[in-house]
Order: sequence, then C-alpha cells, then structure tokens
Amino acid sequence: MTTNEKALLLHEKWNGKLETVSKTPVKSREDLSLAYTPGVAEPCKVIAKDREAAYKYTIKSNMVAVVSDGSAVLGLGNIGPYAAMPVMEGKAVLFKEFGNVNAFPICLDTQDTEEIIKTVVNIAPAFGGINLEDISAPRCFEIEERLNDLLDIPVFHDDQHGTAIVVLAGIINALKVTGKNKETCRVVVNGAGSAGIAITKLLLTYGFQNITMCDKCGMISKDTMDLNWMQQNMTEVTNLSNQSGSLADALKGADIFVGVSAPNIVTAEMVTSMNQDAILFAMANPIPEIMPDIAKAAGAKVVGTGRSDFPNQVNNVVAFPGIFKGALEGRAERITEEMKLAAANAIAGLVSDENLNEDNIMPEAFDPRVADVVSKAVKDHIK
Amino acid sequence: MTTNEKALLLHEKWNGKLETVSKTPVKSREDLSLAYTPGVAEPCKVIAKDREAAYKYTIKSNMVAVVSDGSAVLGLGNIGPYAAMPVMEGKAVLFKEFGNVNAFPICLDTQDTEEIIKTVVNIAPAFGGINLEDISAPRCFEIEERLNDLLDIPVFHDDQHGTAIVVLAGIINALKVTGKNKETCRVVVNGAGSAGIAITKLLLTYGFQNITMCDKCGMISKDTMDLNWMQQNMTEVTNLSNQSGSLADALKGADIFVGVSAPNIVTAEMVTSMNQDAILFAMANPIPEIMPDIAKAAGAKVVGTGRSDFPNQVNNVVAFPGIFKGALEGRAERITEEMKLAAANAIAGLVSDENLNEDNIMPEAFDPRVADVVSKAVKDHIK
Repeated sequence: MTTNEKALLLHEKWNGKLETVSKTPVKSREDLSLAYTPGVAEPCKVIAKDREAAYKYTIKSNMVAVVSDGSAVLGLGNIGPYAAMPVMEGKAVLFKEFGNVNAFPICLDTQDTEEIIKTVVNIAPAFGGINLEDISAPRCFEIEERLNDLLDIPVFHDDQHGTAIVVLAGIINALKVTGKNKETCRVVVNGAGSAGIAITKLLLTYGFQNITMCDKCGMISKDTMDLNWMQQNMTEVTNLSNQSGSLADALKGADIFVGVSAPNIVTAEMVTSMNQDAILFAMANPIPEIMPDIAKAAGAKVVGTGRSDFPNQVNNVVAFPGIFKGALEGRAERITEEMKLAAANAIAGLVSDENLNEDNIMPEAFDPRVADVVSKAVKDHIK
Repeated sequence: MTTNEKALLLHEKWNGKLETVSKTPVKSREDLSLAYTPGVAEPCKVIAKDREAAYKYTIKSNMVAVVSDGSAVLGLGNIGPYAAMPVMEGKAVLFKEFGNVNAFPICLDTQDTEEIIKTVVNIAPAFGGINLEDISAPRCFEIEERLNDLLDIPVFHDDQHGTAIVVLAGIINALKVTGKNKETCRVVVNGAGSAGIAITKLLLTYGFQNITMCDKCGMISKDTMDLNWMQQNMTEVTNLSNQSGSLADALKGADIFVGVSAPNIVTAEMVTSMNQDAILFAMANPIPEIMPDIAKAAGAKVVGTGRSDFPNQVNNVVAFPGIFKGALEGRAERITEEMKLAAANAIAGLVSDENLNEDNIMPEAFDPRVADVVSKAVKDHIK
C-alpha cells in the first residue's frame, strides 16, 4: 500500500485526528459543582474584574488557533475550508506532539480579507496565539499585519516565518560548513509568494546584503510588471543593481539558491555556473527544484530539501511548536524579528560542531531538545 | 474551605479545564507522513471533490462549538467573553464527560447580532453542531433562528431548549404522580427570558392549553407595555383570556408553577392558593423561588429545583450531551420540536414506574444510561 492509500484509510479510521479532553474528571456531584456551577462562577468573577486572570484560569494560557481560509493549501491550491481541515487538524496535532502546545483548527468559510480579520478578532478571547496557515499571498501579509495590530496575542503566519526561520537556521550552518560570509554572499531566492518573501526579509534582517528574488518570469526588479504591493516593496531592498534576466542569469556566480517554487527548474548547468561551494535549498515538495545528487555532481557543496528521505530536511516542525511554546509561556504579544533570529540561531546550534558537515546541517525533526531550546530562545527575547 | 474557594484554587491548578489531544501518536517519520504531509493531501483531495467526506475524515463528525458572547452568564449578567470562558470550558467538559461529544469553547468579542451570526457562519466548517450559551434575550432568539437557516448543522440554544426539555421531562412524571392531565392543567411560568419562553413554547407543543407567563410586573397580557418582540408573540398563545394581575393572582387555582426567575418570590400563601396536589419547579439558582420544605408544608405535592441537594433536580446535563450525541451520529441538520419532545419523554422514561414518586421524578445526572437513551430518541426522529 502506498503512503497516500494508507493515509486515506487511517484518516477514515481516525474520523478526525483531534479530540478535546477534560483535564479534570467529572464523576461526582462535587466534581460537577467545582468544574461547573456553582463553583465556576468564582473564576468568572475574578476575570470580570481583571481580564489578565484569563491566563490563570482558562485555556487561553496554552491554546493556539490554527486559522486558514483554505486558499493556498499545500500544493493543492484553493481547495476551501472543508478540504483544508485535515491539514489544520494535522498542524494542531504537531503543536501538541512536538511542543505540548494545545491547538485547535479554525477553517474559515470566507476568503474576504476584512471578514477574516473580523472573525479572528471576534474569536480571540479563547486563544493565547493565532497561527495563520495556508492563506494565499498577498492577502496573508495584510491579514497578519492587521491582526497583530488589533490583538494583544501573537499572530504568526507559519508559511512565511516558520519556513524563513528554518531556512535561516540551515543557512547559518551551511555558511560554517563552506566558510562563506553573509556580508559577501550572493543569494537568489526563487518564488515570490509568502514563503519566498518572508525568507528574503529574514535573510536581510540577519545581515545578507545581496539578494535577488526571481519568479516564473525571471529576476524581479523595479521594472517587473504585475507585482503585488508586497513584491513591489521587496524591489526596494533586493536586486539593488536592478538587473533583469532569467533564473539562469541570476544564478551565475551566486553562492546560495533558495527555492520555494517548482520541481526540476534548476539544471546541473545552472549549479555549475554558481560560485564555488554553492549552497542550495531546493524546497519544492515533493519534487525539489533539483535533485540533491544532480546538484552535488554539478559542484554544490550543501543541498537541503523539504524531504525526509534526503539529508538536510528543512521542516517547519522544528520551529513553530517551540516558537508558540515560548511565546505562550513568556506571554509575548508579538513574535518579533529578534525572536525569529534567536530561534534560527537556536535551531542551528542544535547541530554540534563535531557533528556539523555538509550532509548534517539541520537537527532532526524528532530531536527531543528542539521545542525547549527554541522556546527558550523566544522567551529570552521578550521585552 | 467553601466550594467557591475550592473551585477558585482548582481552576488555578487546572490553568484551563480543556486540552486538545491527538488521536494518533506522531513518534516517527512515517507517523508524520500519514497524519501530516505528504499523506494528509489525500483526504483533502477527496473532501475538495465531495464536501460530505468532511464527516468521514475530519473532526466535524464529532465536534460542537460552545458559543457565547458573555452577555448573560449564569446569574452574573453581562460579564463579557473573557469572564465567560470558565463556564464555556466547563460546558465543553460536560459534553465530553457525559456524552462523549467533543466540544470547544468559542467566546465572542462582540455582542452585535449581525457580527455574531457572521462569525459563527465563518467558523462553522470545523464543527458538526453549534451550542449557543448564555446569550441574552431577545437577541438569542434571532441568532439561533437565523443560524439554523444559514447553516446545515444543528444550532441549539441550551439555555432555552435544554432547560425546556428537562422541565418537560419533570412535568411528564409529575403529572403521573399527581394524576393531573395536560389538557386541563393551569400552568404559570414566571420569568419571561429565554428559558421561560422556551419552556412555555415546549409545554404548548406538548399539549398544555392553559399557560400564563409572568414577569417582574405580573401577568403578561396583550396590554403589557415594553415587551420585546418574542414576548409579544407569546401573548398570542398564552393567557388567552388576557387577564392582568400579580403572580399571586395568577397562581390562584393553578396546577403547575415553573419559575426561572428570582429567589423567594413565591410565598406559602401563594402555594396554598393553588389547586390541590400542586406541582412547583422553582429553578432560581442557587436560592429557589420557594424552598421545597415550605412549599410542601403549604400543600405542594411535587417540588423540583435546580439544586443537587434537594430531590428532583432539574439539570440540563441530562439533556444536551445526549441531544448533540444523537444529532451528530444521525447527522441531523436541525434539532426539531419532535426531537425535543422525544428527548423529554426519554428522560422521563428513565424513572421506572416502581421508582416514581413525588420525590423521585428525575433521573440522576450521573445515571450512565442517560446520554444513550436521549441520543437514541433524537436519532429516531431524524427525517
């Protein structure tokens, strides 16, 4: 049986992957009078006087909403909120299993930006954080930004920042392996959707100075037509010499390639045209922009993908559970740039110097230290 | 330590009464590939083609949203969504513990009718049913009615219908004990909020023909000022001789008193003025409209209250878990009047003829048969 067939059968058996469970048994009249009426009125009264007490007496202290409108789910596209549910339930499962963070899937039956924002604001009281997921660009940028301004709990679009943090972690270690330097590296990011833009932003914040973004039509510059507002913003801080040309043109002499785009679009020739000891993160899923063996044979030094069956898997699961764990425990109101950088450094630091090599730049997804280390890094940067 | 002090300490210890738990462990790469990517894409694809499959592959099959805007919480009034959380979490706990129904609290940061309706519609994809809770009248009537029209999952305001079902169950058995007859009984319902109105409606549906509603100012008639639209509707079907006067006037010669009002407002004299073998449901909480011993001494035959320390406790927990269990299992799109009557009969039927007496008209809240019996009654009436 293939993985896909097995997954379908199991999802039918599970009949939903998540359940809600009481922390306290209700087996007697006394239990009932404490967890429910009349005793329950006491914490209500305290919270009515002091909203902060919600963190003491309710699930808000450790509950994340996994919010999607189903507009950009995996590689499946705009499949809507019902079909997005298995992914959001899965995400909630990962929050719990990897970070001991409770999470609940909220799939929205609207793709209108204003309605999404209003709905999330309206349901926020139960939650300590909002994880946005699989919402298409450029709406995802506005939704995240405005929600962060409207709410006093952190709002984090994982497709953007989770991916960016894990890629940066990988690049930090790849720089060590290759002896390259962030100030002088030339970076090409292929794919100008939510992930590509967030990766580019975080690499700039980290200190990279020469990044060119590409999309289907090649290098993105101030002269590129039909850019959305966020892509236009990016032309102010990338491709500073305002060059145009193909992805192949961009890659000539480049040190780092980051792909969040499409299968097999990078050729061996392109890799050979890159600078020595090239670093490639080819994260199109399930088929990467170039297969690792081909990239290596063409001269690449470090190759990462999104797949678990190749070395150097770039997997968000090493980031988001720990990030929310730290944010919840430290009562952060936002996930700041400092926290993202600290999380990336923490993830990179989990690969010890003696274990670090071109085929081992990322910690294992199941490394039991990950969530605590990331959580601590986030908490240390709460102001 | 008092119950209240104990409840406060326990709520602090629990730090939220509910957690989300994965039905499947994710301990290996294979687990991950089945519960999450890439395997999770398979159920997504099936649901994208056929939305019905959401009931097969997602939590929608067994997940209820407990929705409140915090406008009418217990006896505490309009304490808002944050302070309402302990009650809604408690309700979700009862759903699970009594009916094995998963439930999640949604406390809304808005008290605007249109925004509440829109928000609930927007978050509906994850849920198989909506339990409205502690929303003030008359908004609760419109919100429930419009949501039932807009959604293809059942929407049920428990303060109304749960209470009405349990009261009707009690009355069915009280009629047996007293030998009274629904067609000839005079009924007085005191309190014209959501519960009082729903009780009155269900008693009319059951076949009572002579019901008078009272509020703080006495009997409600076509001449009463300042009624909301639903109370005005009720004047068409109650108090058919359009009398006016006090609660005391209404009770003279009445057979049944149902109170969802205020402590100690019924006197011994009023009970004595009622018909022989009077039936009283004095459900103000925690202090009833009249204490059972006083009512009994004044001539009442059957007295029920909301309290567990007196006989004949009227407790919604014998209704709502089984009602949603049945509705979810049978995929009901609405909770119909037939289902409510069937549920009340089923609850009444749990007290066997040999055990039935004036101090034993209700099944125990912890009677393990309750949820299944109610669930079956509901399922048997799905068209």
